Amino acid sequence: MDAVPPWQTVRSARRGDFRIFRVRQDFKISPQTGREHDFFVLECPDWVNVIALTPDRRMVLVEQWRHGSETVELEIPGGVMDAEDEDPVQTGVRELREETGYEGEEARLLASILPNPAMIHNRCHVVLVENCALRHATAFDEGEFLLTRLYSIEEVRRLAREGRIRNAMVLAALYRFALAENLL
Amino acid sequence: MDAVPPWQTVRSARRGDFRIFRVRQDFKISPQTGREHDFFVLECPDWVNVIALTPDRRMVLVEQWRHGSETVELEIPGGVMDAEDEDPVQTGVRELREETGYEGEEARLLASILPNPAMIHNRCHVVLVENCALRHATAFDEGEFLLTRLYSIEEVRRLAREGRIRNAMVLAALYRFALAENLL
Repeated sequence: MDAVPPWQTVRSARRGDFRIFRVRQDFKISPQTGREHDFFVLECPDWVNVIALTPDRRMVLVEQWRHGSETVELEIPGGVMDAEDEDPVQTGVRELREETGYEGEEARLLASILPNPAMIHNRCHVVLVENCALRHATAFDEGEFLLTRLYSIEEVRRLAREGRIRNAMVLAALYRFALAENLL
Repeated sequence: MDAVPPWQTVRSARRGDFRIFRVRQDFKISPQTGREHDFFVLECPDWVNVIALTPDRRMVLVEQWRHGSETVELEIPGGVMDAEDEDPVQTGVRELREETGYEGEEARLLASILPNPAMIHNRCHVVLVENCALRHATAFDEGEFLLTRLYSIEEVRRLAREGRIRNAMVLAALYRFALAENLL
């Protein structure tokens, strides 16, 4: 066999609503054995991460307290797509502005990746914005507090290599950026 | 202010057990406002991903149906740390063998990253194994079915650039590998 066959879902049930995600239980038939198995899946809106560059090619990073890991993490800006958002680029531009006050030009979609295809249904879009400058006051959500940091691309690479940037979605975005820039 | 202060958790409650993850609700005090907020967090065991290289520097990838995204994904092998596992390298060697039949030498920890520090508590460890060869039969878990694929490092990079490898934890592992190899 040289292809992986899909599983067919026979029924689904809601198992919980936890504000930033919902839990769904899917009952599916194995294409190998014909037997039924069940799987728990998280439903979330799509997420957006932003690679924002200044005219001198420094990257806009943010430091914030993360409530999953319970640590301060150094990351690129980002957020959750609203129901009203027409596309991920709009979300990325808004989140960059709200979290850092930076605004740029030629915002565009660099990649769409899967945060965790084993158990989450959504995607994470990576938006690239160039010629960014500090043009606005920040506008944090309730309970949000971020510090903005600027690093050269070489410094960002060193921070990733040394494990100071360690959010998988941020590292994946930096990898897609490096590939797009032909840095590797 | 040039540092991000931590939040103190005042109480926690279990909100659900879904086999591969549990949901916890943490009540915390904002260090900025002193007000209480609550956050939903997933508890999972740590995960392990494996970069396995053959003597001619091809990478061992796997294709499998993913129940979160409901798609076939091309990824590096990996799995969940068992309670009995002493360390992530042991998990990585076992998962590589069970999922692909490959076994190698000098297995070692390349990086430990955070799958999603905003909402998941765990880490994902990246294990590097060299001189891998097909030495065993595969031993899939119930409901598991994977196809093994070998690609050169240049082909893996192309697959990532073209969006055919799109699991964020896999892309993050490939980035850390590229950084360790001084490929960028």
